[in-house]
Amino acid sequence: MPRYTPLIRSLPSTVPFVGPETQERMRGRPFAARLGANESVFGPSPAAIDAMRQAAAEAWMYGDPENHDLRQALAAHHGVAPANIVVGEGIDGLLGLLVRLLIDKGDAVVTSDGAYPTFNFHVAGFGGVLHKVPYAGNHEDPDALIACAREVDAKLVYIANPDNPMGSHHSGEVLERMVEAMPDGALLILDEAYVELAPNTAIPRIAVEDPRVIRMRTFSKAYGMAGARIGYAIGAADLIAAFDKVRNHFGVNRIAQAGALAALADTAWLDHVRQQVQSGREELSSIARAHGLTPLPSATNFVTMDCGADGAFAKAVLGELVRQDVFVRMPFVAPHDRCIRVSAGTEQDQALFAAALPKALAAARG
Amino acid sequence: MPRYTPLIRSLPSTVPFVGPETQERMRGRPFAARLGANESVFGPSPAAIDAMRQAAAEAWMYGDPENHDLRQALAAHHGVAPANIVVGEGIDGLLGLLVRLLIDKGDAVVTSDGAYPTFNFHVAGFGGVLHKVPYAGNHEDPDALIACAREVDAKLVYIANPDNPMGSHHSGEVLERMVEAMPDGALLILDEAYVELAPNTAIPRIAVEDPRVIRMRTFSKAYGMAGARIGYAIGAADLIAAFDKVRNHFGVNRIAQAGALAALADTAWLDHVRQQVQSGREELSSIARAHGLTPLPSATNFVTMDCGADGAFAKAVLGELVRQDVFVRMPFVAPHDRCIRVSAGTEQDQALFAAALPKALAAARG
Repeated sequence: MPRYTPLIRSLPSTVPFVGPETQERMRGRPFAARLGANESVFGPSPAAIDAMRQAAAEAWMYGDPENHDLRQALAAHHGVAPANIVVGEGIDGLLGLLVRLLIDKGDAVVTSDGAYPTFNFHVAGFGGVLHKVPYAGNHEDPDALIACAREVDAKLVYIANPDNPMGSHHSGEVLERMVEAMPDGALLILDEAYVELAPNTAIPRIAVEDPRVIRMRTFSKAYGMAGARIGYAIGAADLIAAFDKVRNHFGVNRIAQAGALAALADTAWLDHVRQQVQSGREELSSIARAHGLTPLPSATNFVTMDCGADGAFAKAVLGELVRQDVFVRMPFVAPHDRCIRVSAGTEQDQALFAAALPKALAAARG
Repeated sequence: MPRYTPLIRSLPSTVPFVGPETQERMRGRPFAARLGANESVFGPSPAAIDAMRQAAAEAWMYGDPENHDLRQALAAHHGVAPANIVVGEGIDGLLGLLVRLLIDKGDAVVTSDGAYPTFNFHVAGFGGVLHKVPYAGNHEDPDALIACAREVDAKLVYIANPDNPMGSHHSGEVLERMVEAMPDGALLILDEAYVELAPNTAIPRIAVEDPRVIRMRTFSKAYGMAGARIGYAIGAADLIAAFDKVRNHFGVNRIAQAGALAALADTAWLDHVRQQVQSGREELSSIARAHGLTPLPSATNFVTMDCGADGAFAKAVLGELVRQDVFVRMPFVAPHDRCIRVSAGTEQDQALFAAALPKALAAARG
């Protein structure tokens, strides 16, 4: 037997999320609406699709390991230097690298109970000790996160703004105060995966060289390129340079680099997606209300719907939706697991959801 | 300042390879022939390009985290079970995960002095202690690797067959004997990145459940998809399952999955590439001989050429080739650094190399 490290021996062969394809194989038939993973059904920018198609024939070449052109464009976009940006294989990949940079066995990390499971997966994967604070209602609780970080001497603190799975958000001012309150030696991960779909007021003004915070962005959500695997982090140049110690230098695929560059330039498409998402959220919220559910306000591309009872009930509703070929997910942790979470879809997707929901509720109640 | 781990603080912000794009930016002009990274200038299969183009529009969906369809196809291709295959972001990504599974600070790892630097990067990145044995001439030395593994109680032993950067290969029988000789508790990494371009006799017969070895394969070389970032490992089901503890489950991009599936099915294209590579090797070897260099026999898509003097001379030749817009690389370590390494190219690429070489040699001599 290979001699695994003690840490590896202690880890389960776990999967943070079961993919919809896995469910389709288990069910023996495809989903009719794919509204569970907060993907952007509106797709990538046509310019990004063109760029990726063109890059497909050039896929014999490794991608630029410096991601130079994209970093230049992102730097201009954010008004920072290219040295403040590292591009990686999605936020998931960047979170893994960041945890590896800071977390040794036993080091303390703080997050919210019910926040992004893949972050927790990475922390466990490097032997970190996770400390979880409860949400304050449907919002992550900056004060509780900070207090816990102080108490446990955390090296890393995670917050998503807007939040997944609740769809809530804090104003940029709240995040700015959170950065100011960070205890010495703790780094704040501000996961802004959904921020392009939030009000502008959700974006904090943080000096890019502020050593207390690193921001994560992605082309997976508003830019509709989840399958291309490309995201980036913005932070102090020293911290960004540290990624070079451990990152897979040739790991970002060439097709994604080309697509992201084109996607970033197509601001009209981003505006279009924002509008589609906003209408989608409104319609999903109406559908929810029409059937007695409470849609939560959302600054993301999904609507979290309070089913008005406990986790078992929401789980039954979700099961019935899936049975009717509508892929949705739900929060894992109480009390959020009273909800289901539905991504904004096409008109057809949302019509399928609207038709399936009352049947699912009836079945769950009966 | 973020509190990096002691290991991270000890690591340099190193880059195993400088990419050709970086060189182009430094030079201020593009290369005319890209023959330095052992990419396949013959490109991906047209069917793979089509599949990737089609997948570009579907890039809004995450890729299947189980890589199910590709693993099924690979399992059928190799006559093993899907549970014996893990798909990852190229061999680079899989090597990083494998090192992470086994190597703790201070653990011993054995490789050859001058073998794949990215493997060494990963070992250093997890705190492993690298022990390097010399090549036996232009071949990696299985006996020396085994002897060293015994001596240092290695957890991991690395060998590439065919070898990069020398292009040499051992017969499958030699590798089979090496597996049999592996000391208890040591795992052999057999990096077969170039094996599709080698004689069939280079492929060892190894029972897939043999716990002493894991094989690495890629779509980057013969399949011409380096920029798509997709490779796989074949090994015992227990070891393969362990990757699930640490891998980035959604990390393999959807476009690459689709492309690889189509590439694997297009055996005619693979045959075509094999023929192109063979003619390319023959012509590169003729060019080398015509100018007094000694081409080494190659079982890969490149030809390593002995420049007949020391490392400084080969480096001067390489510098002159680069100045003439021909991107090539050379081995890093003596005595291999007496050579330059040239990937098989198109007729035009090779004509450019043929024209540049005598000038480069003259300049290096003068």
